[in-house]
Amino acid sequence: MVPLDPIDPPNEFELIAALFAPLAASAPEALALTDDAALYATSPGGQTVLTVDAMVEGVHFLPDDPAESVARKLLRVSLSDLAAKGAAPKGYLLVTAWRDGTPLSWMRAFAAGLASDQQIFGIALWGGDTVRTPGPPSFTLTAIGEVPAGTMLKRGGARVGDGIYVTGTIGDAVLGLRALRGGLVGLDKTHRDWLAGRYRLPEPRLAAGGALRGIASGALDISDGLMADLGHLCAVSGVGARIELDRVPLSLAARAAVALDGGLIEAIAGGGDDYEILFAAAPGREAEIADIATETRTPIVRIGTVLPAGEGVNPVDAAGRPVAFKHLGYRHF
Amino acid sequence: MVPLDPIDPPNEFELIAALFAPLAASAPEALALTDDAALYATSPGGQTVLTVDAMVEGVHFLPDDPAESVARKLLRVSLSDLAAKGAAPKGYLLVTAWRDGTPLSWMRAFAAGLASDQQIFGIALWGGDTVRTPGPPSFTLTAIGEVPAGTMLKRGGARVGDGIYVTGTIGDAVLGLRALRGGLVGLDKTHRDWLAGRYRLPEPRLAAGGALRGIASGALDISDGLMADLGHLCAVSGVGARIELDRVPLSLAARAAVALDGGLIEAIAGGGDDYEILFAAAPGREAEIADIATETRTPIVRIGTVLPAGEGVNPVDAAGRPVAFKHLGYRHF
Repeated sequence: MVPLDPIDPPNEFELIAALFAPLAASAPEALALTDDAALYATSPGGQTVLTVDAMVEGVHFLPDDPAESVARKLLRVSLSDLAAKGAAPKGYLLVTAWRDGTPLSWMRAFAAGLASDQQIFGIALWGGDTVRTPGPPSFTLTAIGEVPAGTMLKRGGARVGDGIYVTGTIGDAVLGLRALRGGLVGLDKTHRDWLAGRYRLPEPRLAAGGALRGIASGALDISDGLMADLGHLCAVSGVGARIELDRVPLSLAARAAVALDGGLIEAIAGGGDDYEILFAAAPGREAEIADIATETRTPIVRIGTVLPAGEGVNPVDAAGRPVAFKHLGYRHF
Repeated sequence: MVPLDPIDPPNEFELIAALFAPLAASAPEALALTDDAALYATSPGGQTVLTVDAMVEGVHFLPDDPAESVARKLLRVSLSDLAAKGAAPKGYLLVTAWRDGTPLSWMRAFAAGLASDQQIFGIALWGGDTVRTPGPPSFTLTAIGEVPAGTMLKRGGARVGDGIYVTGTIGDAVLGLRALRGGLVGLDKTHRDWLAGRYRLPEPRLAAGGALRGIASGALDISDGLMADLGHLCAVSGVGARIELDRVPLSLAARAAVALDGGLIEAIAGGGDDYEILFAAAPGREAEIADIATETRTPIVRIGTVLPAGEGVNPVDAAGRPVAFKHLGYRHF
């Protein structure tokens, strides 16, 4: 690592050499970050999947979120998009817009977060851009993945009668955000911390997503909230859906929170930042899905059924009665 | 086009439907912007070139720059990167971070600027992300291009004895920025407006860049300034260079400005935002380069010579005497 002067603000080239070049060292596609471009070829028989996501301080992360977790969440949010497409991640491009006066220690921690997740997910930095901003810092990540041609999972394709499934547990992130903002005061600190961790560090379901190629009829990752994203899946597929709320998988911490305040179930179904895969699959695929859950060590449960479009997108309680929510899903504006 | 309510701020999905979906309509890779991802395959025998650039209001464009030209410049800056790689543009991903209260008319004009340049350059929007920001608006564009495998132009590769060439004219953008900021008051308004146009709307040299594959030994596009980017080319190639300042091609407007203030030559050589291609080529390629200039209708002139690394990177005057500049190139931080 190139030493950086701890007092003078570094220039773009010093930052690239000190922070980013090490993240690109293993990737020939990055051309050592000297060329303003990345160069690569899709594998024979493969197709490239590209996805891009931005995070702005104060909108998508909290000013006091640790730099490591901001960086890792940025990367994982895009990897979650790839997971929901059934794609294998290959590399990424990163744009950092730094506020003047951002401490070098924060930048270094940000790069360290990326480095640790690169190890976990077997990818590397291929390129990017480094700019300054007078506003809040923001970060934009373009992830490059690959699927065998013709196998990418899409949102459209859910058919009436399909089961609706989710991976993992739902609602942890929205509860974690509340805990970080001083809410859920009656909840055990261990639970609050665990939920905050789920908000800060999503788990992209890459193994499950890859295994679902050829099995899921429609899929996406839950970023806007379970009900909102179910609405997106249904809209693109031209179908409706019924979700049995008592089947929605909750973590131990979320169960404890709901035990204290039953109204939180609306936050859980309506919140966001879950980064679990929501998918539909034909009734005959249940055994294969159970095998995928076992083989990829990913909890997968069925939570509902695809209905004709005219039926709408409805949550029901354990007795099958419709549940009315006031606010569903994250509104970006 | 989906009608947008002129009073309520639109949400992300309304914005995508109204502004961005039309920009993606012609591209199967975009999956109608319904899938959080773009899907494509490189042509057989091709390699993909990816480049990403960000523009922040107040840093990379002026608050009163017209929305159309901000959008077109954003796109053209990335296309210029592809041009300098010899790559043909295929599509792009766009992240827009809108400040709360941005008028819809401004957003519409932004999209209209993209639409007009998509026509000119034969590309389409493949995907992106739309977020809000409490800070200045910023835009990030990932451009996807293609080259025949093994032919991408790189920065490293300039050899001692090669000629150094540039396309177009140098310094117009930095002078245009000065004019927009109220400078160059003695200069004719026609010249000031023309220079401002060159600042706002660079001309990516795609035809010339493509034709230079196999001919240029090293190439980049000038964004930080002629001398700074020459420094980058030389650093990556491990060489030095001598630039004959009187050979640096100037527009009529730039000549008129220099006639009024000879000191502007430093701004011209040190400024940025030219988005012309700077390249090196072996002495035997001169005739081919002249043919490329004719065939692609792109001015290309030789401005210097590659020297051994120990010679440094030096501008000289018409008599061959070294010229000392105080400030060379755009510092990003």
